[in-house]
Amino acid sequence: MSLLHEIRQTVADLHAELPRNDLVVWTAGNVSARVPGEDLLVIKPSGISYDEISAENMVVTDLDGNLVEGSHKPSSDTAAHAYVYKHMPHVNGVVHTHSTYATAWAARGEPIPCVLTMIADEFGGEIPVGPFALIGDDSIGRGIVETLQSHRSPAVLMRNHGVFTIGKSAKDAVKAAVMCEDVARTVHIARQIGVPIPIEQADIDSLYARYQNVYGQEPVA
Amino acid sequence: MSLLHEIRQTVADLHAELPRNDLVVWTAGNVSARVPGEDLLVIKPSGISYDEISAENMVVTDLDGNLVEGSHKPSSDTAAHAYVYKHMPHVNGVVHTHSTYATAWAARGEPIPCVLTMIADEFGGEIPVGPFALIGDDSIGRGIVETLQSHRSPAVLMRNHGVFTIGKSAKDAVKAAVMCEDVARTVHIARQIGVPIPIEQADIDSLYARYQNVYGQEPVA
Amino acid sequence: MSLLHEIRQTVADLHAELPRNDLVVWTAGNVSARVPGEDLLVIKPSGISYDEISAENMVVTDLDGNLVEGSHKPSSDTAAHAYVYKHMPHVNGVVHTHSTYATAWAARGEPIPCVLTMIADEFGGEIPVGPFALIGDDSIGRGIVETLQSHRSPAVLMRNHGVFTIGKSAKDAVKAAVMCEDVARTVHIARQIGVPIPIEQADIDSLYARYQNVYGQEPVA
Amino acid sequence: MSLLHEIRQTVADLHAELPRNDLVVWTAGNVSARVPGEDLLVIKPSGISYDEISAENMVVTDLDGNLVEGSHKPSSDTAAHAYVYKHMPHVNGVVHTHSTYATAWAARGEPIPCVLTMIADEFGGEIPVGPFALIGDDSIGRGIVETLQSHRSPAVLMRNHGVFTIGKSAKDAVKAAVMCEDVARTVHIARQIGVPIPIEQADIDSLYARYQNVYGQEPVA
Repeated sequence: MSLLHEIRQTVADLHAELPRNDLVVWTAGNVSARVPGEDLLVIKPSGISYDEISAENMVVTDLDGNLVEGSHKPSSDTAAHAYVYKHMPHVNGVVHTHSTYATAWAARGEPIPCVLTMIADEFGGEIPVGPFALIGDDSIGRGIVETLQSHRSPAVLMRNHGVFTIGKSAKDAVKAAVMCEDVARTVHIARQIGVPIPIEQADIDSLYARYQNVYGQEPVA
Repeated sequence: MSLLHEIRQTVADLHAELPRNDLVVWTAGNVSARVPGEDLLVIKPSGISYDEISAENMVVTDLDGNLVEGSHKPSSDTAAHAYVYKHMPHVNGVVHTHSTYATAWAARGEPIPCVLTMIADEFGGEIPVGPFALIGDDSIGRGIVETLQSHRSPAVLMRNHGVFTIGKSAKDAVKAAVMCEDVARTVHIARQIGVPIPIEQADIDSLYARYQNVYGQEPVA
Repeated sequence: MSLLHEIRQTVADLHAELPRNDLVVWTAGNVSARVPGEDLLVIKPSGISYDEISAENMVVTDLDGNLVEGSHKPSSDTAAHAYVYKHMPHVNGVVHTHSTYATAWAARGEPIPCVLTMIADEFGGEIPVGPFALIGDDSIGRGIVETLQSHRSPAVLMRNHGVFTIGKSAKDAVKAAVMCEDVARTVHIARQIGVPIPIEQADIDSLYARYQNVYGQEPVA
Repeated sequence: MSLLHEIRQTVADLHAELPRNDLVVWTAGNVSARVPGEDLLVIKPSGISYDEISAENMVVTDLDGNLVEGSHKPSSDTAAHAYVYKHMPHVNGVVHTHSTYATAWAARGEPIPCVLTMIADEFGGEIPVGPFALIGDDSIGRGIVETLQSHRSPAVLMRNHGVFTIGKSAKDAVKAAVMCEDVARTVHIARQIGVPIPIEQADIDSLYARYQNVYGQEPVA
């Protein structure tokens, strides 16, 4: 059960990145991680403030969102996270925020165009929009999965709602959430007083291929 | 008198949320709480900086805004808070800010439309505008109460002035003030370069009903 | 000489409010105070970072801007501060910043209209624009004084440059700088997607009269 | 080897200014310094977070970007930094960021016009745009050098990408990056609701000459 504790700690720690990067207000955002080799995930409880988060109060659910371990009710977004893990086996981390600029694009139902090398690097093209979906059944999860499966982007703007990001790890999903808000803000500002210059598809492909393969340090063994 | 001290402490502590959430500059915002079972409220003194606030220097007034306990002059907004408690018996907390984006909507006299699921959840529809009112008599208080009584929203944008929010507790009123500024900002940004997509009334109703009944943890006994 | 040390300490401490309220970057802003009863002022040295500021490294100059005491060169804005003290005997504090939103109005040479009760309270009407003026002689100081003498406002937007504020104390001048940026931001945002509603002159007069006489605590004896 | 350690420490310390001044998110920005008298530079490793930076993990490369000392892979921007040092002998510091407002101008391929005295002081005229360039060969470095050689500005906006700044020291380059973002933001905001007033060339020349020669303290011996 030591691996599970480590994942609880990681998920608890990663929540600190959300307020630190101005991605959330009050309790409105969450990070989850898959428990490798088991049909389980670790996620934030509902309505708990970021100051109160600890490894101990993180909750464990199955991939239908049912509580397996923990004394608090899971986040009300758990069903969406669970659906993603169930249908995207390569995904080990999911993040949900209502970060301001990304959510503003989502309110208009407008994808973020690929006009920055940083977007090409990290998202491999535009950041797409998913459907409007009510909470309560699997329609949010389905909207996320169907949209991301047809794009390179690890981020999707859910219409009138907010952002979901995925990653090979929970940290990668957090990174995608941070970068998504950053480029949403920069492209918004560029658009306010003019028209950003598009990047050609061949250049996008070249930037994406390089960044996915070359950037950063080798993982520590 | 121990309950009163506890309320003083709560009100003092909640003031820290105002600068922390970028809702105020200098001394321009205040939180109050009703003293349950008595016609009294606890509020910040006038012109005191957020660093100087303590349970000890909070002041107690009656529901006409007359000083009952405390060595400082009450906030100049006390009459408005008092009017709300007098006329809305289910309200136990009131917050007033001049938070930037909400006040910008107020300067135009324009309600914030319900184009985000977060607005439907928390406000149940648009965030309404109250009348222009001078300080000095009960016209601000009356404007708040009359506007809020015809809306689900716990927040009202007072024209050319700022925001008042109410709650079942002072903490709930602070939460409404934080969420009001957050959605005011996001919808403003969405509007800057296009038109946000409206959410249908049936979906707003469904989101509001669910959020008010399901979200968060059960109150601790 | 103990009073002078106290003023050095006050001026040093007030500089911390500039970065704290996001009014400055790097070393680009300064606070000064008149030494009562003497033709002297205390100001920040040139090019010193906000982390390095202490009572000890504040400098003292006469009202022509000549160094009287201190081992550093005075701020390059000293001549403008000195001119204000020389020609406005009721002013005991001056602040200069390039705060973002106020400077944006200054770049367009456009006064900030009085469309918020907070502007009526604190500035008594619009925040005016002063002339374009080169540094090096008394033209900046003259522009500040001539503009402020015909307005109630303690703040002036110097064209293409930045903001100067005055006060009965250095703290009051800092407060005016904080409020000026706050209302510059709010009115800018209100204007981005519509037209703010003006406040009638009689209401402005009434708000200003009340705020100048009633707000805040009595000065401590 | 003590001088080299000192430079490692300086470069490590200056990285803290990037998040502190809101110029970067995640790991997306870097500072380098030339090692005086040797064809070497010190730079941040690739993909390391700002919290993890220390004098010890800074890396040393030659002026072709080849690793000379250090256990981590150099920043993927090292080739661009190295090219600048090789072709601009008076440059001893280089900074790269994707700071929001400057990058928004870069996304439109639009120089920042000289409409603030601060721009005249620090940049001596407009902040120019460099070409779109893919990472991987010397085209970014070449674009930086060719653009800066025909301008007074120590900052260049690389199209669809971000900002590079240079300085006589690494600290000067950081200062230029901070000021570049600050003026990019202010001029953007000025432009949102009107047209900033240009400054005449003779005034720009006069401001630039004075600032470069008079501002700040004499260097400490």
